[in-house]
Amino acid sequence: MSNQWDAVTDADACCAPGALLREPLSAADAADMAVKLKALADPVRLQLFSTIASREGGEACVCDISDGVEVSQPTVSHHLKVLRDAGLLTSQRRASWVYYAVVPQALASLAVLLGADTRTEVPA
Amino acid sequence: MSNQWDAVTDADACCAPGALLREPLSAADAADMAVKLKALADPVRLQLFSTIASREGGEACVCDISDGVEVSQPTVSHHLKVLRDAGLLTSQRRASWVYYAVVPQALASLAVLLGADTRTEVPA
Repeated sequence: MSNQWDAVTDADACCAPGALLREPLSAADAADMAVKLKALADPVRLQLFSTIASREGGEACVCDISDGVEVSQPTVSHHLKVLRDAGLLTSQRRASWVYYAVVPQALASLAVLLGADTRTEVPA
Repeated sequence: MSNQWDAVTDADACCAPGALLREPLSAADAADMAVKLKALADPVRLQLFSTIASREGGEACVCDISDGVEVSQPTVSHHLKVLRDAGLLTSQRRASWVYYAVVPQALASLAVLLGADTRTEVPA
């Protein structure tokens, strides 16, 4: 069975220096990245996002997502909407419940932005 | 000459699934990460940070940092303070100028958080 994250990045992209480390970001790239980072930059949203992302298939029913976070259901819904509006999650209604799924490309683009250079030079 | 990012991460850590993808984050880890993400979640701060990070040695004089961003020097100083307070930069005064340097470990911890799984399975 293929992994949900297959084809999102390759090892070269993952292990290359992050874009932040290579050259000054353009204003357009910075604006795009800031939207996603701002959506993730909240402790409850990080917990909700990681709860969904770590589930089988990277998706979860809204009825299961709030386990472990100390906020009300309406607050959970608000935070999930922020993550969806930033392009980090998608949502789909199935019967009575809404399911949220991670957008792998969105997370990968942030990882590529931040990835630290892992290349080492061997002393002569 | 060794690279400034040597020893910050290794290839296994870089290319492993990000912590966000493996398991739900604890409240403590989420709070810690949210502080750094919030500091980076601004277009001007991302540009300033990348300007410093992409310089030789990952450091730059404050006198050079504002090239290419359309904000005043006091605004640049405010944004640099936010990044420093979040542990993403350090600052040091030398003669008349302040120099800012990236904290490699801080960026690496975010990359490890977000890193997408690059492992692929070869079909049988």
